[in-house]
Amino acid sequence: MTRTTARITAVDTYDIRFPTSRELDGSDAMNPDPDYSAAYLILRTDADDGIEGHGFTFTIGRGNDVQVAAIDALKPHLVGRSVDELCADPGTLGRALIGDSQLRWLGPEKGVMHMAIGAAVNAAWDLTAKRAGKPLWKLLADAEPEWLVQQIDFRYIADVLSPADALQLLRTGKQGAAEREAKLRERGYPGYTTSPGWLGYSDEKLTRLAHEAVADGFTQIKLKVGADLADDVRRMRAARAAVGPDIRIAIDANQRWNVGEAIEWTRALGAFDPYWIEEPTSPDDVLGHAAIRKAVGPDIKVATGEHVQNRIIFKQLLQAGAIDVLQIDAARVGGVGENLAILLLAAKFGVPVCPHAGGVGLCELVQHLSMFDFVALTGTTEDRVIEYVDHLHEHFTDPVVMRDGHYRAPVAPGFSATMHAESIAEFTYPGGRFWAADLAAQITEEVGA
Amino acid sequence: MTRTTARITAVDTYDIRFPTSRELDGSDAMNPDPDYSAAYLILRTDADDGIEGHGFTFTIGRGNDVQVAAIDALKPHLVGRSVDELCADPGTLGRALIGDSQLRWLGPEKGVMHMAIGAAVNAAWDLTAKRAGKPLWKLLADAEPEWLVQQIDFRYIADVLSPADALQLLRTGKQGAAEREAKLRERGYPGYTTSPGWLGYSDEKLTRLAHEAVADGFTQIKLKVGADLADDVRRMRAARAAVGPDIRIAIDANQRWNVGEAIEWTRALGAFDPYWIEEPTSPDDVLGHAAIRKAVGPDIKVATGEHVQNRIIFKQLLQAGAIDVLQIDAARVGGVGENLAILLLAAKFGVPVCPHAGGVGLCELVQHLSMFDFVALTGTTEDRVIEYVDHLHEHFTDPVVMRDGHYRAPVAPGFSATMHAESIAEFTYPGGRFWAADLAAQITEEVGA
Repeated sequence: MTRTTARITAVDTYDIRFPTSRELDGSDAMNPDPDYSAAYLILRTDADDGIEGHGFTFTIGRGNDVQVAAIDALKPHLVGRSVDELCADPGTLGRALIGDSQLRWLGPEKGVMHMAIGAAVNAAWDLTAKRAGKPLWKLLADAEPEWLVQQIDFRYIADVLSPADALQLLRTGKQGAAEREAKLRERGYPGYTTSPGWLGYSDEKLTRLAHEAVADGFTQIKLKVGADLADDVRRMRAARAAVGPDIRIAIDANQRWNVGEAIEWTRALGAFDPYWIEEPTSPDDVLGHAAIRKAVGPDIKVATGEHVQNRIIFKQLLQAGAIDVLQIDAARVGGVGENLAILLLAAKFGVPVCPHAGGVGLCELVQHLSMFDFVALTGTTEDRVIEYVDHLHEHFTDPVVMRDGHYRAPVAPGFSATMHAESIAEFTYPGGRFWAADLAAQITEEVGA
Repeated sequence: MTRTTARITAVDTYDIRFPTSRELDGSDAMNPDPDYSAAYLILRTDADDGIEGHGFTFTIGRGNDVQVAAIDALKPHLVGRSVDELCADPGTLGRALIGDSQLRWLGPEKGVMHMAIGAAVNAAWDLTAKRAGKPLWKLLADAEPEWLVQQIDFRYIADVLSPADALQLLRTGKQGAAEREAKLRERGYPGYTTSPGWLGYSDEKLTRLAHEAVADGFTQIKLKVGADLADDVRRMRAARAAVGPDIRIAIDANQRWNVGEAIEWTRALGAFDPYWIEEPTSPDDVLGHAAIRKAVGPDIKVATGEHVQNRIIFKQLLQAGAIDVLQIDAARVGGVGENLAILLLAAKFGVPVCPHAGGVGLCELVQHLSMFDFVALTGTTEDRVIEYVDHLHEHFTDPVVMRDGHYRAPVAPGFSATMHAESIAEFTYPGGRFWAADLAAQITEEVGA
């Protein structure tokens, strides 16, 4: 690490939007027309090394400007910070941002403001890992348990997970880490693919992509459900026919249902042996998930998490025995520190973590957290898979690499969060090249008509 | 109502901030220096009647610009709407805003985006009530139960409260409404005051204001606690000495504690007979509140709600038996429709509603909801009080009126949400007269130094 008295000198933010709704990629029962977007920031410093910290919140289009405004509101907490101090203890940033006594009113610890905090905190971890010359998963796996515990905010979870509990889990987790790291570098971390299952796709496209998924080495695929039961039965039958009995098929309702509907609909698809039902209802409904799990389990597992707002809801989902599968998201909660808390909670309850990914850059980020979990926390990949969606990776300087259905371990330093400068320039909304040309075409059309 | 083909023609938004932190008004264990603020909107129409709809989100300073940006993001859903259709069925607006498939990602139904929706929906109800020539409480109390049920989104609560349940409660609630309305107009609705109990006040000021509260007819006061136990014991002793044994003293920790701390700290203040402990921990922690209630009840009641994000968390607080007192806030959730759902949930469980108020304009708004509840839903004010804080009412055209510790029933048409144009002009941030002068004074000071 370069020894300097360097400071954060600027926080540049970007509203980046990709026109994915035009292809129906990513369509599901609640999100029919997403334009995958990133509210993106770059931490710039005056260090000699020229290293920047990159981070972002993923959104699906409209409102990405609101998310950028929320990141902008954090700038006074960032600009002027000592780079050495920040990278020695990035947890301090999360505490400062969450602790802002006026901004706190806008959450607390949920929604737009909390996702903005997560983006800034993740950018600080990206900077930290780049300066350490390690991919983030390796930085976390190499770290002393005492230091990792310092990076975590135990407020509101200490009744279930104390710092002492966390330390114990991390110390145990480190045993045998070197062998697991070698295994990870050799085989990667298992993924599953959602690419066949978007609601907007025809049955033919679904079947073709399901065949391809199996050929590519995936042992689990996922289907979006919840818009129409007859369609779901037909699509689920086609998917099961395509992949055979041994490939797991998860189904995902994206919060479409009330508790009663969730139970009925999931049971109606039970004949096709779905592995888990994901987001059957509101992510806020701990007791609702518990009721659903009681009704459809143990044959069908219950999964949620991509929209769970923070560690406090995850704590309760685990306390209430409401989920079989916990789905962290790298860019929904308050960043790496809060996700460490969530991984530790899951480890304490013995619930497997199968991250949500896809969108813009979510695969790139979240793989680091699962890989750390395997190497230095739970030590296993059994029943654990990271979602994989083959979208928009080309915009990142260190894109995920899949082989035989496994995520390869990143080797480049950082959190794999850095987007190509050209991608930022092209897809910045509304002034970037793509959107400016799109607007010009619309005007031409209107004038012509 | 004027028959027109009028439309919403514009949505004007304002970032309004009052410099309350300079007086330590409103200081508590989590919010030491609030600048009470409003992210404010005006729905303008081209109707002949010149009637506007006003609404706002309350914040405490920094980030009020983010909140305004979120309201701005809703404009495409508002501009161009038929005024007649909107006012005939304002619930349609809430459904359209919550259902925006891209904006939904920023919540769903929580935080900045949900509060923005609440502000817009409340502005539509203000417009509706003004056009009907009635204060909002009266509009709601006069409405047919069938129509009220249509204004409510039952998604994610139907497992506990169905439309049929709601209809039954509202039909029963209407019996005897005329007599209760007369009683309300005569006596008002009971309030309690937080004015003596801010953490930044000296013991002398606390004692003086507590005496004044009793003299003013209040039967309950509230003290902020949670920063330092020895201080809290001293302040609680002073307050109890000032008001005697018969006045209820609520205590409010503003989410300061973990579950274990909450239990210990509350018990340590038990000798002074606190009536309820408010916000003992995170508003997201349903199971935590249940554990606290089990430990400190039934002598000390558990209250929360001002930061509860939506009806789904309230549903679970009631299902889990986690609270004795439910504290709605008029400007935190998605507006009047969602608060109707919450009032109905509370009525179903027989839990009294004691609204959170204070801030900017929260008293003005929330009184309408409690008054409707009394006249046409639960029919009682027993153990029910609306928080009252004597701040910033002068900025409203229809400010609350207190007499003998009771809120007088508003008589002006609307939701009492309209701020004086001069107040908006003076306190708009950062360009309004107050803030521009403040900035000029700072520059002068710096140049002089």
